[in-house]
Amino acid sequence: MSESIRFVDLIQSRIDGFFDARASILVSIADELAPIAAFSRDFLSGGKRFRALFCFWGWQAVRTAGDEPGADAAVTAGGPLDAVVSVASALELFHAAALVHDDLIDNSDTRRGAPSAHRRFERLHDQEGWQGSGATFGTGAATLLGDYLLILSDELFDEGLTQTVSASARRSARAEFNRMRLDVTAGQYLDIFEEIGWAGRPDADQLARAERVIVYKSAKYSIESPLLIGASLAGATVGQLDALRRFGLPLGIAYQLRDDLLGVFGDAEVTGKPSGDDLREGKRTVLIALTRQAVPAGARATLDELLGDPDLTPQQIQTLQMTIRDSGAVEKVERMIADNVAIAIEALDEAPIGPAARAQLRELAVTVTRRAS
Amino acid sequence: MSESIRFVDLIQSRIDGFFDARASILVSIADELAPIAAFSRDFLSGGKRFRALFCFWGWQAVRTAGDEPGADAAVTAGGPLDAVVSVASALELFHAAALVHDDLIDNSDTRRGAPSAHRRFERLHDQEGWQGSGATFGTGAATLLGDYLLILSDELFDEGLTQTVSASARRSARAEFNRMRLDVTAGQYLDIFEEIGWAGRPDADQLARAERVIVYKSAKYSIESPLLIGASLAGATVGQLDALRRFGLPLGIAYQLRDDLLGVFGDAEVTGKPSGDDLREGKRTVLIALTRQAVPAGARATLDELLGDPDLTPQQIQTLQMTIRDSGAVEKVERMIADNVAIAIEALDEAPIGPAARAQLRELAVTVTRRAS
Repeated sequence: MSESIRFVDLIQSRIDGFFDARASILVSIADELAPIAAFSRDFLSGGKRFRALFCFWGWQAVRTAGDEPGADAAVTAGGPLDAVVSVASALELFHAAALVHDDLIDNSDTRRGAPSAHRRFERLHDQEGWQGSGATFGTGAATLLGDYLLILSDELFDEGLTQTVSASARRSARAEFNRMRLDVTAGQYLDIFEEIGWAGRPDADQLARAERVIVYKSAKYSIESPLLIGASLAGATVGQLDALRRFGLPLGIAYQLRDDLLGVFGDAEVTGKPSGDDLREGKRTVLIALTRQAVPAGARATLDELLGDPDLTPQQIQTLQMTIRDSGAVEKVERMIADNVAIAIEALDEAPIGPAARAQLRELAVTVTRRAS
Repeated sequence: MSESIRFVDLIQSRIDGFFDARASILVSIADELAPIAAFSRDFLSGGKRFRALFCFWGWQAVRTAGDEPGADAAVTAGGPLDAVVSVASALELFHAAALVHDDLIDNSDTRRGAPSAHRRFERLHDQEGWQGSGATFGTGAATLLGDYLLILSDELFDEGLTQTVSASARRSARAEFNRMRLDVTAGQYLDIFEEIGWAGRPDADQLARAERVIVYKSAKYSIESPLLIGASLAGATVGQLDALRRFGLPLGIAYQLRDDLLGVFGDAEVTGKPSGDDLREGKRTVLIALTRQAVPAGARATLDELLGDPDLTPQQIQTLQMTIRDSGAVEKVERMIADNVAIAIEALDEAPIGPAARAQLRELAVTVTRRAS
């Protein structure tokens, strides 16, 4: 994975340079804007960079499609590599924007083991002894921080396209980016809708509805779209795009199913989120839908009552975890993950792409679905 | 102004067509997304379209710079007009996004006489009898609605650039758009910061600080940038851009000063916002800074205590209005408006632009600074 590691370094230095330039503008407007610059930088340091990596390997997959097995996919800096670095960095910025607003919407206190954006602004308010409500300031400032990151992601994406020579590659990458942003916004809305609107809907639909949220909020956005954006930049054919879609979508579903398991059973030390966080938020995931299908009516009523209570005790969390595990839902989700990964790998094997990229994408598929954080 | 009226019609039909296409995508994902489509359309119907008009007349100003006085600036549909219609529509979408998040941040209940976005979603929640808190759903859904509009504004802006032939015009318009978005986000942050951070700052700085908010949150964003974006699309020279800046910035300041007066003294029937709304929000405007400078310490303390109390009674609002008026601050603000308009008009008279556009921009300058809503 040395190529991936090198790419992640390029992403970090691209993001750092971009933020430096924007921070200069902010501070030239007013010193008081320094927290916007500082927090946005913090939220973009580290992270797993999966989106950037899928974008990069989507690009490599197409760029090296004519290579013989065993060929070296290494690229030299400058030229087209600059474009994919900018575009992949833009995807990371977009993701950070989505997380800032998502934490706000879900009222989550932590992100990657540190306070979420609105909590950081709230803490700043308290430290500085400003007037009024710290929570109100935190919410307002985090709304703007998310907007700022959203705007910058677009600016950086456009910079990447400007570095791309082919007009049809630009159009195709831009169309995929636009669609991705619409999909994820729709998915986020459906996600919060499911938490409050599920009671009026037939139980039988719940699994299908949870799967729909996965597809739009996460699967397309986290894997399929970054892959296709990268591939588009390299001038992918319709056949290549289709093949990568057949790999990316099931893998994205598997990725999110792993996330759902981690949201209930993950180790807080590793995930950086409190254990059982999804239960307190009342997320209506596939895992929950499968549990509800499997347990008797009494247990289902208790589950419905507890889910979404922000004040669940560790004891109640443990009870819910046990109910979910004993229902067999965990095994079913593990099977769904394995099945989706198998479908993805099969599509990958048949895709008309470069051999080195194929091997790297196979490794990435394992990494994103077997992770602990 | 028949040219302006015709342009506003083109804007509306461009926005409608664009929303139709996006609504189809949303509903193809899930029926439950219909409110996102419906509310975004509602927020984009009507409004004064000042930003679109300044963009259009900035474009016309440059496009017809060689015309003799008395020449007809009328344009035929298609070609470059399509580009400026898309770009001007994008500015209106961006503005709607900013308003949705701004109302959320300020916790405003109304916008143009109708419920603000978060209140509409909250009402929907109550009507449908969904689970959980309507306010939480309203906040989350409005955050996403703002994101959706922000993303679409960018998509439409890019469409407009795609319709623009000159690469340097594209680059220049895009750079101005990027800077505008950064400026307004910075200005919004400074705006909420002033409401909570003013107490720790020297009184003597307050006026300068209030003026800084005006420049970034409103003046550049509402007038200068739209004007420059339009001018850029038509291939403006550096000299033309400078001249339009010298017109746009002071006019934008005058525009926002009028807004500040309306925020305190405006007729709720006409503004669509409750009378004295800015006082309840505790906005630290130039008007307030001038009042604080003019009144004795006791009255200043009372003012500081009342400002920002969301539960101000109509009686207290009236008392505050009287304090502000009696301090002479209203007259001072009126003088500032007149001075800034005069500076703007002087710059306009000297600008190397088309004669018909000059006349229209002069009319617009009066409209935006003498309005009652």
